[in-house]
Amino acid sequence: MTSGAKPGYVRPLNFRRGSVELAHGGGGRAMAQLIDELFMAAFDNPALRKGNDQAVVEPPPGRLVVATDSHVVSPLFFPGGNIGSLAVHGTINDVAMCGARPLALTAGFILEEGYPLADLRRIVESMSEAASAAGVSVVTGDTKVVERGKGDGVFINTTGIGVVPPGLELSGDRARPGDHVLVSGPIGDHGVAIMSLRESLGFEAPITSDSAALHELVAAMLDEVPQVRCLRDPTRGGVAATLNELSRQSGVGIVIREEALPIREAVDAACELLGLDPLYVANEGKLLAICPPDASERLLAVMRAHPLGSDAALIGEVIEDSHGFVQMETAFGGTRNVDWIAGEQLPRIC
Amino acid sequence: MTSGAKPGYVRPLNFRRGSVELAHGGGGRAMAQLIDELFMAAFDNPALRKGNDQAVVEPPPGRLVVATDSHVVSPLFFPGGNIGSLAVHGTINDVAMCGARPLALTAGFILEEGYPLADLRRIVESMSEAASAAGVSVVTGDTKVVERGKGDGVFINTTGIGVVPPGLELSGDRARPGDHVLVSGPIGDHGVAIMSLRESLGFEAPITSDSAALHELVAAMLDEVPQVRCLRDPTRGGVAATLNELSRQSGVGIVIREEALPIREAVDAACELLGLDPLYVANEGKLLAICPPDASERLLAVMRAHPLGSDAALIGEVIEDSHGFVQMETAFGGTRNVDWIAGEQLPRIC
Repeated sequence: MTSGAKPGYVRPLNFRRGSVELAHGGGGRAMAQLIDELFMAAFDNPALRKGNDQAVVEPPPGRLVVATDSHVVSPLFFPGGNIGSLAVHGTINDVAMCGARPLALTAGFILEEGYPLADLRRIVESMSEAASAAGVSVVTGDTKVVERGKGDGVFINTTGIGVVPPGLELSGDRARPGDHVLVSGPIGDHGVAIMSLRESLGFEAPITSDSAALHELVAAMLDEVPQVRCLRDPTRGGVAATLNELSRQSGVGIVIREEALPIREAVDAACELLGLDPLYVANEGKLLAICPPDASERLLAVMRAHPLGSDAALIGEVIEDSHGFVQMETAFGGTRNVDWIAGEQLPRIC
Repeated sequence: MTSGAKPGYVRPLNFRRGSVELAHGGGGRAMAQLIDELFMAAFDNPALRKGNDQAVVEPPPGRLVVATDSHVVSPLFFPGGNIGSLAVHGTINDVAMCGARPLALTAGFILEEGYPLADLRRIVESMSEAASAAGVSVVTGDTKVVERGKGDGVFINTTGIGVVPPGLELSGDRARPGDHVLVSGPIGDHGVAIMSLRESLGFEAPITSDSAALHELVAAMLDEVPQVRCLRDPTRGGVAATLNELSRQSGVGIVIREEALPIREAVDAACELLGLDPLYVANEGKLLAICPPDASERLLAVMRAHPLGSDAALIGEVIEDSHGFVQMETAFGGTRNVDWIAGEQLPRIC
């Protein structure tokens, strides 16, 4: 994030009535001003203050991890967060799922001409708060502006880097027959919060996104149970897609029990109304964990002791199956395949 | 980049007549297929093949550097490259400008529903070729799809990480009065190539973007002249904006000589026609270097010995000036201020 406006030359940005202009992405004084008065003000830290086009980070020992996510969620604001906090949580979670401690984030904005500066500031401030709360800095960034009608308000790419402590080896290909499958809490909250808003479903109490940074939960889990095989956050495609990914990567099958799946009543009811299956609905503050069977009781206890895992549950186990099928024992005693969804269930959910 | 389609379940993507669908961003089988048949095929490397949501990189000793760039160039294809090669070069250059060796790139795609898969493949293949040529892998990525009319074909975020060898300290705040200012070659090529295309200027020989990865030129320069104070690539806002940034960061003035600025004849002529000042036009394969005066001759020789610096020139020097003004001695013997541009000269140039 390079900034360079000479202060005092221009009047301050109007965060009450102003809007994004093409000039804010042009590399000149207007861009420098947006960076100074908005991004630097919100994200202020020594790396950003250097004003270079890149940031220098001193990593502790360990393997370096990098994860990237572009966020296009619509609408931009929703119960429980907005695209800014979501962009921070989503990328921290991708970094954390291999056991890494997140170190730094980058932020790339694609803004649409005409977007209100007031709303942009709310988004940037949410990013900043989410990053501070997670103990991570936004160390460098980039701003582009596209013409009206060539974007959709705000898109944000966040890329995260982190460090895996020596000795830790988590990966989606490490699940073994007999392993247990755990989820950290009720599923479907984020996707249903977004869809309820889009469909203007008026619930008595609005359903709130579960958007949250999970790295501290992960650290607590791995401190106590380093035998965990793999962790993954079931975002787009939901628990169903994530279990299918893991079974494919590990070359195993997975069987889950419908009755064991934690689902909030309101989410269940909304899914019914919206014609959604909660297994396929995105989460933004949940994780799936696979661990050896003799470690699952201890792991569950650690998860339940953390505020972000208080409703954690053991939902199934890994079985031998070279086809990599995921199956569910239903509440009625039958078994059904939990397949990939073929198409788009929920567009622009994150 | 997580992939998980079970092979053989769906027919292959139609790269001749197919187009991007919302389902390609939905987290289900269609997305897994796009990742497998397009991104994995183009970027294939061990980190990607792991199929996790993040990549693990083993950095050599040194300080870690991270840079991010979202690319929204329009049109997507231009003489000398396309958004894919540009996204690779742009981010490698931001990493390289602090003397770092680039290690890995991430790629985040925001695709517009309906964009032809054939064109997307050309873009992805250009990215892959540019990355291979630079010796850098795309280790992880992300794909989002937005509805028709909510994007503009393809936006690409690339984030790069690299390592600065111990002992090297380059930063925009290190310019000192007396230092010399060098440029690695003719200025304005990229911006003029894009603008000529947009304005359908039909030149006999089309003007070609200078888009290129500069990390090897930088390595050669720093091997020979480790005293270099700072390097920066004059992209958006051109040489004028970059010199203003550097003078502001270092708290110095800069004087350049108009006659010393290398500019191609065709670019000069096109600028005349388009009403552009080449000093403000973006470059994507050039760098500005500031070094102590006694090192500039040697630095210039090293730059000229490299194919990407063969037309390098000494264009000015750093002076004492607490206002941080950039000035130019004109060809007619006068002096003019080289100010920031206030607004948008060239939207969506990168």
